[in-house]
Amino acid sequence: MFIPESLLQKEKDHVEGFAPEVAWVTHGGLSPLAERLCVRPTSETLFCDFYSKEVTSYRDLPKLYNQWCSVVRWEKETRPFLRSREFLWQEGHTAHATAEEAKERTELMLNVYARFCEEELAIPVIKGKKTEKERFAGAEATYTIEALMHDGKALQSGTSHNFGDGFAKAFGIQYTDKNNQLQYVHQTSWGITTRLIGAIIMVHGDNSGLKLPPRIAPVQCMIIPIRQKAEGVLEKASEIKDALAAAGVRVKVDETDKSPGWKFSEQEMRGIPVRVEIGPKDIENGICVVVRRDTGEKLEVSIDSLSEKIPALLEQIQKNMFETALAHREAHTYEARSYEEFCDTIQNKPGFVRAMWCGERDCEDKVKEDLSATARCMPFDNNEPIDDKCVCCGKPAKHLVIWGKAY
Amino acid sequence: MFIPESLLQKEKDHVEGFAPEVAWVTHGGLSPLAERLCVRPTSETLFCDFYSKEVTSYRDLPKLYNQWCSVVRWEKETRPFLRSREFLWQEGHTAHATAEEAKERTELMLNVYARFCEEELAIPVIKGKKTEKERFAGAEATYTIEALMHDGKALQSGTSHNFGDGFAKAFGIQYTDKNNQLQYVHQTSWGITTRLIGAIIMVHGDNSGLKLPPRIAPVQCMIIPIRQKAEGVLEKASEIKDALAAAGVRVKVDETDKSPGWKFSEQEMRGIPVRVEIGPKDIENGICVVVRRDTGEKLEVSIDSLSEKIPALLEQIQKNMFETALAHREAHTYEARSYEEFCDTIQNKPGFVRAMWCGERDCEDKVKEDLSATARCMPFDNNEPIDDKCVCCGKPAKHLVIWGKAY
Repeated sequence: MFIPESLLQKEKDHVEGFAPEVAWVTHGGLSPLAERLCVRPTSETLFCDFYSKEVTSYRDLPKLYNQWCSVVRWEKETRPFLRSREFLWQEGHTAHATAEEAKERTELMLNVYARFCEEELAIPVIKGKKTEKERFAGAEATYTIEALMHDGKALQSGTSHNFGDGFAKAFGIQYTDKNNQLQYVHQTSWGITTRLIGAIIMVHGDNSGLKLPPRIAPVQCMIIPIRQKAEGVLEKASEIKDALAAAGVRVKVDETDKSPGWKFSEQEMRGIPVRVEIGPKDIENGICVVVRRDTGEKLEVSIDSLSEKIPALLEQIQKNMFETALAHREAHTYEARSYEEFCDTIQNKPGFVRAMWCGERDCEDKVKEDLSATARCMPFDNNEPIDDKCVCCGKPAKHLVIWGKAY
Repeated sequence: MFIPESLLQKEKDHVEGFAPEVAWVTHGGLSPLAERLCVRPTSETLFCDFYSKEVTSYRDLPKLYNQWCSVVRWEKETRPFLRSREFLWQEGHTAHATAEEAKERTELMLNVYARFCEEELAIPVIKGKKTEKERFAGAEATYTIEALMHDGKALQSGTSHNFGDGFAKAFGIQYTDKNNQLQYVHQTSWGITTRLIGAIIMVHGDNSGLKLPPRIAPVQCMIIPIRQKAEGVLEKASEIKDALAAAGVRVKVDETDKSPGWKFSEQEMRGIPVRVEIGPKDIENGICVVVRRDTGEKLEVSIDSLSEKIPALLEQIQKNMFETALAHREAHTYEARSYEEFCDTIQNKPGFVRAMWCGERDCEDKVKEDLSATARCMPFDNNEPIDDKCVCCGKPAKHLVIWGKAY
């Protein structure tokens, strides 16, 4: 968890990027330390130190590690889930014999994250490459997935970095190849964080609370008994629960002594995708009310068909949540061909702006200063030029860039 | 991960126990902090702070949380796996309406840990209660499981604490019961750490390296091809692997370009419970050599019966490893009825010593000073008095205690 100050300083760009925002341990017990330790803001230097001792032969490669841990970055402004000083993340680190393998791994992991966001979290993302200014400190290339929140702000939702052999040279990580020649390794790292919980809230939620995508909802269906003290109600609820569980649904009965109305609101707030209401009359008629959290729609479903209908409904909700989020993003993605149009859009239409860029840092700095907006990425898909001039300075354009204000 | 100094100080015994051995964060980025933060040595104060905001009604109870995280204790002397300044652990925390529920949970978790050590890690443990001196800072009672390493030293291998309502009173954690009366909650916490990896090494290992109990071995069986370039050898190895995998065995083929002798030693060092040697002659004869890591025994097994024999052999190894460890502990458990006998045993016969104790702290302090030994626990089983006098001071004895030198 700790990085000695001297170790953090080994890779020049890396220390410049991170040193201003780390927490420093200066005392152990009652004594001051001889060397300050920073609480890891990310673990590349620790893995590099480890590789430099562990890797000697081509036989030791590739190395592939993953860890779940908390890291600390001393942010000035914080925001729950989206930007906190301590956050839990998953960080993967690899070392490869060749540059090509490292590039493949960087792309592979970006695709893993993109698929996870889209298929499990129902959050559409744009895959692309960061500009040099926005790149991870010490990386040769940073790939990113960018999502749009419901308020039109962008959220960097996962990154995958290709370090080339930069860290290997700074830390002396070399291996003997099959021809007995010393070579530097090529490294990658990649991570996603609990920030994605914020993304789920900000993409899907509404004023009544969370809306959890069914695939990740810990409880997918809550059965709420009406007049639960009446004979047979809890028994029937429990019977339905067993049938749904057998059909693979994560299901619970809310048997607490709260009123049904309170339970409805509470389970809505918690984002449970589907609720089933079951009371004496429903049991008599063999029909109950099923309520979708995503649309609020109420359906009458025969009790006998619940274990067939609910799993299908959950799939439908998952799909609808993704499509709703995608439609929202598309409705809030604009194009700009002049700086005036660009400024007007950024200032008045929250969302993504697609515009051309010359490749110069100066233009990114100007956009940041004028508009507090940043280059989110140079997208991998839909990146046909829409103009031949930079939207900012008018010089020849090099890349289509997705711009936006970000969390 | 951080505990503000003022929060750590809320429970008097707790801060006295931990403050001298924590790491202090004093700077965030470039600025000194207004209040020092300690890197959590354990998380009771954080959970208490959380409960004090979260728990208001009997409906909120019980609370049950588990987290895996690294904690830091600034130990003066360290030892790999057994005592490190940072260690990964699992810590569970509960809050209950009644003292009885808290006691039940404390006992339940001690039994979970004991079963895990004995059944999965093949490490026999003694369950018991810590003396007041050895108790967790702030606890009303600490239960422990104690294991004996092969060098005769004791290792505290897991603990479960009952806090009663002490922390609740210090942090103001109250709930309204069904009769609308304010009550304090009763809390527990319990944990095991990566120290158990050290226990696996120190209980089972030998001079050739690790011996992993089959139930936890990531690879239970390593197939080592002999003359692997000869026709059909790798194919047969892969066939055997598939058959074993289908029988539920975690199995790999070592296809690296190292020599068979190197591979034998390497897989021994890594503690793989079983290795299968397979070469052209074995294939011809339909019989191969199977080597047990626990005993070193070599068996000739017909290739066709491997997928039946290996799973049974793994169970046998698991059982044998536990029994060997238990026999070692029994052979190194002594009794003492006079202080002379006690000192002689502790100094000359590494192991556990069963001896009577008056219940006074002075005697524990004397034993610590004279012999660097401690009261490991007052065992729950086999705790019939063996004498009526304290082994140290001769006053009337209150408890049978297991004494030993500990890591």
